[in-house]
Parts: sequence; C-alpha cells; structure tokens
Amino acid sequence: MIATVTLNLALDVTYHVARLSPHATHRVSSVAQRAGGKGVNVARILHTLGYEIVIAGLAGGAAGEAIRQELAAAGLPALLTPIAGENRRTLTVVDDAHGDATGFWEPGPETTHAEWRSFLAAYDSLLKDADAVVLSGSLPPGLPADAYAELCQRARTAGVPAVLDAEGEALRRGLTGRPALVKPNRDEIAGIVAGDDIISAAEALREAGADAVVVSQGPDGLVAVTPAGRWRAVPSEHVAGNPTGAGDAAVAALTAGLARSVPWPDRLVDAAALSAAAVAAPLAGSFEPAVYERQRATVRLEALGDGPAT
Amino acid sequence: MIATVTLNLALDVTYHVARLSPHATHRVSSVAQRAGGKGVNVARILHTLGYEIVIAGLAGGAAGEAIRQELAAAGLPALLTPIAGENRRTLTVVDDAHGDATGFWEPGPETTHAEWRSFLAAYDSLLKDADAVVLSGSLPPGLPADAYAELCQRARTAGVPAVLDAEGEALRRGLTGRPALVKPNRDEIAGIVAGDDIISAAEALREAGADAVVVSQGPDGLVAVTPAGRWRAVPSEHVAGNPTGAGDAAVAALTAGLARSVPWPDRLVDAAALSAAAVAAPLAGSFEPAVYERQRATVRLEALGDGPAT
Repeated sequence: MIATVTLNLALDVTYHVARLSPHATHRVSSVAQRAGGKGVNVARILHTLGYEIVIAGLAGGAAGEAIRQELAAAGLPALLTPIAGENRRTLTVVDDAHGDATGFWEPGPETTHAEWRSFLAAYDSLLKDADAVVLSGSLPPGLPADAYAELCQRARTAGVPAVLDAEGEALRRGLTGRPALVKPNRDEIAGIVAGDDIISAAEALREAGADAVVVSQGPDGLVAVTPAGRWRAVPSEHVAGNPTGAGDAAVAALTAGLARSVPWPDRLVDAAALSAAAVAAPLAGSFEPAVYERQRATVRLEALGDGPAT
Repeated sequence: MIATVTLNLALDVTYHVARLSPHATHRVSSVAQRAGGKGVNVARILHTLGYEIVIAGLAGGAAGEAIRQELAAAGLPALLTPIAGENRRTLTVVDDAHGDATGFWEPGPETTHAEWRSFLAAYDSLLKDADAVVLSGSLPPGLPADAYAELCQRARTAGVPAVLDAEGEALRRGLTGRPALVKPNRDEIAGIVAGDDIISAAEALREAGADAVVVSQGPDGLVAVTPAGRWRAVPSEHVAGNPTGAGDAAVAALTAGLARSVPWPDRLVDAAALSAAAVAAPLAGSFEPAVYERQRATVRLEALGDGPAT
C-alpha cells in the first residue's frame, strides 16, 4: 500500500460563468466539487494504475465532510484525522467565452497541536502497512514548521521510503528528516537554492538530506540526481493541455517505482511519460492512457556526466 | 410575530483578495460567511428593531447546515424545511486595491414536490401566530411557478397580510394570490409591465391582484399606490454606500407598518428613512441608526394626484 499525506486537503470547486467581468455579478451556470490537494491527485493516479492506496490528512467543517463524501464515492480509501477548523476551498472560475480560468485559494484551517498529535498516531499506524509514503503540498497554519521532517524521520524509522513534494520553508526544513526523494520543480528549487545550474542545486538538496532529487521542468521533462547516477528524461512530443497535476503524476510514477524497486532509468521514463499524459487530461489527478502508452515507448533518456550540467 | 419566507436561501460568502486579476490565481486573505437571501436581510433588520421574527425556508447540504448554524449563532429564530439538495452560495470577491466587488451566484438547489408539501405544512403552522408574512426573492428550480400565489392565498385565508418582494414570472404569477403589498424596484416593475409611467405600472399590478404597490427607486425614494392614496417619499440627503439590501430595509419597515396598521404616510416615511440608513451600513441586513433617526425627521413626503405621474 502507498500512503499519500495531504496536510492541507482542499475542496476543489469549479464554477462556470458565461464571461468573467470584474466588478459585475455573475450567474454561475454549473458548480462541481471534488477533493483536492497534491496528495489526492497522486492517490487518484496510483488508484487508476491499480495500486492500493490510502489518503491521509486532516478534515473538518462542511468542506471536510464534502471531501470525505467525494473520496468515498470515488472509491478512494481515506484515513482522515478530524479537526475543529474547516478545510480550505480552492475555487476555479472558468470563463466559457475564453476557456480560461481564474483561481481563488482560501487559507488553510488553523490546526492545533493536539490535532497534529492525533494525526501522527494515525500516520504511525499507516506506516506499518505502507510500501512508500508521499508527503505533498503546503502546511496549514498552526502545524510545526518541521512537520515534514518529523514525518520523514518516522517513515525512515519504520523502514518506509518517503517522497516529499513541497516548497519553501516546508521543503527546506523537511530535508532534515532525510526523505528518500524530493521532487521540486524549477521554481521550487530556485526558491531554496541559489544559482542557475539544476544539477548543482539538486546536489545541494542531497547534501541537505534527500537521498535522491528529481526536478520537474515542464515540457523539458525530468532531471534526476540519485545515488545510482544522473539522468534526464524528456517526452518525445510536446503535449498541449493542462499542466496542473503534471508534477503529481511524476510523483505517482516515481513513488510506484520506489515501492517496487524499479531501476532508476525505467522509473524516470515512466514518470516523464505519465506526467506528459497528465497534461493531456483535463483534470488534475487523471491522465490520458493513449499518451501514456505512446510516451512510455518514446521518452528520450540521457545519462548525465558527473560535472555540472551545461 | 413576522414570518419571512426565503425559498432560495443562500450562504453569502465573502472573499478578500489583494487585487482581482482575471485568469490569475489569487490567495484569499479572509473568508467570511453568513446566511443570506432577501428574506433573511428583512428578518435581520426587523430583529434589530425589536420585532419578533421567524425565518422560514428550505435548507440542505453543507451550505444549509452553515446557514442553520449562523442563524442560531445570531439569535435569529428559524423554521427551515430540510431538503436533499444543497443551498446555493453567493460569493462576493472584494478587491482590496479598488474596494470593488465581483459576485458569483450559484444556481439554487433542485427541490422536489414532496419537499414543497413539507414546507407548506410548516408555513401553515407559522401563519397561526403571524401578524404579517414576507415572501422574498427567487424560487429554486423544481418549485411550482405559482408558488408565491399559493403562499399568498394561504396567508389571506389565515387572515395574515402577505408582502411579496419578487421579480419576473415569480412576481407576475404571485399577484394572482392577491398579496397585501408588492415592492418591485424600477427594473422589476419594467420587467412585467410595459410603459415608462410608474403610477400606471403600479396600478396595473394592483389590477393584477396586489392591494398596494410600493416602487423603490434608489436615491429617488419610494412611490406608493394604495387603496388609501398615492404618495412619494424621498430621503432629504443622498446617502453614499452599499445599495444592496436597501430594498429589503424598505420591505422591513413596510411590513412592520402593515402588521401594526400604521397610517400609510408614516409607514412610507419610515420605509424611506430605513432604506437610506441601510445604504449607509456596509452589510445587507443592517442599517446605520444615526441616519435612520435623522431621516425619519426629514424624509420629504408628497401626496400624488389621481392622474399619471409626470
């Protein structure tokens, strides 16, 4: 079983309006909502691929209840720790005239130390059955800044590899817990390591505690710096679509490969292919199977030397 | 007791963002929510003025639960009929850089015939203790188009005067139930009666079934066409602020006057004053007491002749 942890779970709400006009009032023609947050996207993809998963996190209020209900309806097992606060909503307003989207992200719920202790107890029980654990996204207010370090350490103690997909302070502090893998994108790595060279920056993250680092670079694919070597994996075609969730697809493939001890080159090809296939699908947490199959056969994998990349 | 009926109750949600940029993603700095809908605004104002009120309507889903909780926390008695659907949210995004607001109104919940019958039973029980009943706003999908006619007829049978504040088809069909008063604004009356003359249009609504008609005209005050005469009541000062809820304040004063059989001229002065005081307050359902007191002493009341207004 792969456990995905999303401490700042969201209820993703989508409104459609005929045309967005600032400072006017709009009739919303349709409202859709489903559970969201990066770890939920990772779990949806792993579930679609046939992996056993459990979604862990914090849930409270009306939005938390809606998250629980949607996960149950989708057949996604969840172990959610109750909190007194209400989960955030992330609202996307789609302008049907332009096909473009405007986002409004609520702040996460204030979380108490007692709620964090309850979560840790649930997390420890999950680790007993987990082949890998994914730790994704931002921390809601009130959690300790080193929350991810604590979760990584507990996973290491339990012998479970942890994949950390976070940014800023949460990532920087999380590295001290020695995750098996971190997967920043270019902006996220630039946010905590100075300098333009991706390989040097990735090596800095390894020195700070990560066993391996995979940097996602959008259409330019993935760069991996690992104990077994360095590679670049690039999709063979440019895929048009929705890049939201492409990083989560890469994390899903990398975690599945980690749990099954797939050799790094195969793991990276799979991750680059699944990420491109996620871009081709309209919703985060889904992918286009035909693109995935085609890309698995055609992703270009390149071994990188020991020196800095040029 | 005055009962206010809001068949399409809303959860009014307000987001603050630094600056609204279409097609970007925004961090919401604060989220506030409270029960909304025109009848709730009327009830809040009557409650503040010391009247005994009951808020009636349909409530379901997470938004319905949040509506129940907020009304209870505000000390506003409510008799809400449970429905399987979820109440709509009306989202207002306030741009803190410009101080301006952009609105998104969800569609109302699909409502069944059985839920409507349950509501009617609750409504009949409320009529036993009501001195007046207010019927406000739109009808959610699934309710009969003549819902307001039915509610007006039942009120008339019970000897309770009904005030109808609706628009379009809901107002037009509602008139056949012979409400004691309707209060369209200029746009609403233009939506169902052709012609520019307000007095003639108001007389047409009386012929269609209303005992009395008061047309709200924003800063130009109120025009009343009643069995006792015709008047115009205009605030003595232009009040800057938020016009949302000004019509609901006028309905609150007119209904209180109806319940206590206040003479029409005094009733209109009070309604024009309270409406201006509502513009001066930031939230719909509230008013500025100082403006209310000042305007009660200074609203200009003018008796109108029998001919068409010029």
